[in-house]
Amino acid sequence: MNHVLTASQFSQKELLDIFSVATEMEEVLQKGGSEMAKGKILAALFYEPSTRTRLSFETAMLRLGGGVISETDVTFSSQTKGEILADTIRIVSNCADIIALRSRTAGDASIAAEYASVPILNAGDGAGEHPTQSLLDLFTIQKHFQLGEAPLHLAFVGDLKYGRTVHSLATMIRNFENVTVSFVAPREVQMPEKYITKGDVVLTELTDEVLKNSDVVYATRIQKERFEETDLYERVKNAFIFDTEKVTLMHESAILLHPLPRVNEITLEVDALPQAQYFAQARNGIPVRMALIAKLLHLV
Amino acid sequence: MNHVLTASQFSQKELLDIFSVATEMEEVLQKGGSEMAKGKILAALFYEPSTRTRLSFETAMLRLGGGVISETDVTFSSQTKGEILADTIRIVSNCADIIALRSRTAGDASIAAEYASVPILNAGDGAGEHPTQSLLDLFTIQKHFQLGEAPLHLAFVGDLKYGRTVHSLATMIRNFENVTVSFVAPREVQMPEKYITKGDVVLTELTDEVLKNSDVVYATRIQKERFEETDLYERVKNAFIFDTEKVTLMHESAILLHPLPRVNEITLEVDALPQAQYFAQARNGIPVRMALIAKLLHLV
Amino acid sequence: MNHVLTASQFSQKELLDIFSVATEMEEVLQKGGSEMAKGKILAALFYEPSTRTRLSFETAMLRLGGGVISETDVTFSSQTKGEILADTIRIVSNCADIIALRSRTAGDASIAAEYASVPILNAGDGAGEHPTQSLLDLFTIQKHFQLGEAPLHLAFVGDLKYGRTVHSLATMIRNFENVTVSFVAPREVQMPEKYITKGDVVLTELTDEVLKNSDVVYATRIQKERFEETDLYERVKNAFIFDTEKVTLMHESAILLHPLPRVNEITLEVDALPQAQYFAQARNGIPVRMALIAKLLHLV
Repeated sequence: MNHVLTASQFSQKELLDIFSVATEMEEVLQKGGSEMAKGKILAALFYEPSTRTRLSFETAMLRLGGGVISETDVTFSSQTKGEILADTIRIVSNCADIIALRSRTAGDASIAAEYASVPILNAGDGAGEHPTQSLLDLFTIQKHFQLGEAPLHLAFVGDLKYGRTVHSLATMIRNFENVTVSFVAPREVQMPEKYITKGDVVLTELTDEVLKNSDVVYATRIQKERFEETDLYERVKNAFIFDTEKVTLMHESAILLHPLPRVNEITLEVDALPQAQYFAQARNGIPVRMALIAKLLHLV
Repeated sequence: MNHVLTASQFSQKELLDIFSVATEMEEVLQKGGSEMAKGKILAALFYEPSTRTRLSFETAMLRLGGGVISETDVTFSSQTKGEILADTIRIVSNCADIIALRSRTAGDASIAAEYASVPILNAGDGAGEHPTQSLLDLFTIQKHFQLGEAPLHLAFVGDLKYGRTVHSLATMIRNFENVTVSFVAPREVQMPEKYITKGDVVLTELTDEVLKNSDVVYATRIQKERFEETDLYERVKNAFIFDTEKVTLMHESAILLHPLPRVNEITLEVDALPQAQYFAQARNGIPVRMALIAKLLHLV
Repeated sequence: MNHVLTASQFSQKELLDIFSVATEMEEVLQKGGSEMAKGKILAALFYEPSTRTRLSFETAMLRLGGGVISETDVTFSSQTKGEILADTIRIVSNCADIIALRSRTAGDASIAAEYASVPILNAGDGAGEHPTQSLLDLFTIQKHFQLGEAPLHLAFVGDLKYGRTVHSLATMIRNFENVTVSFVAPREVQMPEKYITKGDVVLTELTDEVLKNSDVVYATRIQKERFEETDLYERVKNAFIFDTEKVTLMHESAILLHPLPRVNEITLEVDALPQAQYFAQARNGIPVRMALIAKLLHLV
């Protein structure tokens, strides 16, 4: 593993290895951090705002004992970008030992990897990929269920057309056997065909059945602007909001995930339910990113 | 002490204890810093620009040997803020060991404290509070005078209606006996009734008498936009500018304070006078913030 | 040396000493950094965006084992700047052990040095100076050629009228004997008279002769908006673009430098040629800035 660019780059073996290192990193965190990356520098280049993701990467590096340099200039020109990105990456490669890159344009992470002399961590490239999010999503699932061992029912719910986290996780989960996947979304924002596999269940309504039978429900926000007919949006939107009534239909050991930030798609009362695992999910980003940094820098 | 949220949360005993630790921190600084917070992380979330305050918090953490992650995105939505702030704080609680929060809305720091799993330092919440500023103000006074021992004359001068630093310091000083307080301001921007106590002196003009008799003069800027009648502003503004003539009326061991930044309310010539202590006051922010971080993280 | 403010402040002896320390710093970098600045803080105050320069300064300090605080608020008011800058610098002097300042106004670095109680590194002040850029330019030249020993032909090409890096390097190079300087630029953007010395060659066209005879070609971008007549710009622009054809005219050990970022003035194919040293040049900024920090903080 030289870079982390896409959800599809990982084999099952690699995923399990990353999760194993992430579990070690949880112990490191409990002991108050490590010095294994002492003297190393992470450059966080964020050309699209994403506070939570940036702080998670920076925290991961600091907890490993390394240093951080950051750039959050969102006015970075996208027009002449192809060229300038290559030069920027070459120059930042001279400063940092590893680069986390967030950009507005799909494919930027791969361009960066081509020109970088240090590892690139894709921290989200527009409509493209966000592989570290999918890794922490899957790590969260793995902590609750034995991936590939017992049968697992995973339901994706909400806007499945535009959500890159959904696409990436749906790709990554295919590495494991015994997983049944349901896609639950209004027709306008249903999962694109290319991510649907034989055996998957495709629904347009969030039924009690789905909630009762799923081990993992992965919720995302349905945005009004994705609908041509406002009427339709108004009709479906409430059906996809997770409130106490819906979430208590899930079995007690089932988990509700969400990439965050949420707006109103999960009500605040749900936070107190045992199924609500989205904050724990966000927290898992730190050991996962520590594991990736440690592996890419050959510290483990 | 779990959080630092408001000027009114402190007892006299707690204030003196903080100042005692701050004095120890001055020695730590002279020795080139400490490693007592090694492995700890401060998150500086600044949703309103305030370079000086942010750099002071970050410096305090670095001088203690800890690490810093920062966010200075001022476009943070205030509309949906109630909800999003809670989620942000929960997520950042997973990254950092302590959070310094600056926001545009009064009450945000308390909301943050409700949802945080780590200590919150209120670094100013709009028209609300700015308790660490008041602590450094009072620490500066304490370094020059024995609070509560000898009689102390403290005059607040300028815009006393809108200045939160004035409100907070006026609240905090009530913990000590033997303090006589004067409020000197044009009627339009006079101190709100609720901060005025029996025995306080309320004046509309900055008299020689006040300057001669005060041990501490706390100056703030009078802003034109606070006045309905421009004429009135033009008439009073010069009377509240501190120049050499005014400041030399103060006795030699008296001190002139100002929360900074100033615009023109203290002339540059005054900087050289012994009474000019506003830069020393700003410098005191670092040991005071070191003391607060150290206490909240149970390092002292 | 108390501050680094201008390209003209250095004697030949001082330049060679800085380059000697920079060479030591290259060894420190190869060993994975140092702890010589442990406990020290660099404040990077960037009131004009310049990611590359800022990250280079921050990296230099982190590689020396120190900490960094940064400000990148580009809305810093220039109107009331004279006064506010002085106050800001005095306050930041209380936080940091050394300050790197980038601003929009020539002369700001000198004002800062007047009020600072710690060393100031001028990281570019508008149309003024950018001495650390010139130092890394000259260090790059020194690494390839024995400055002052063998004869050296240095050609500046492109916009020589507005480029501060060109002015500063042209000033700094005068410390050394045996250097022949050519200025090659369209008349509209030719080198100002004050930088031209007896013996220099001034040309309006980039001839094969210049390319063949130069040891160092320092290229800068010609910007359309500098020309009153668009026709003229269109006519000259291609003549000043460095492509494989032009660069292969340079002898094999000659070097092509550029302060970066480039837009289209050096084609991407050139990057692979041995003469293309602009990325190495950017990389040299780190040991040079480490050397300056170390010297100003008396660590070496």
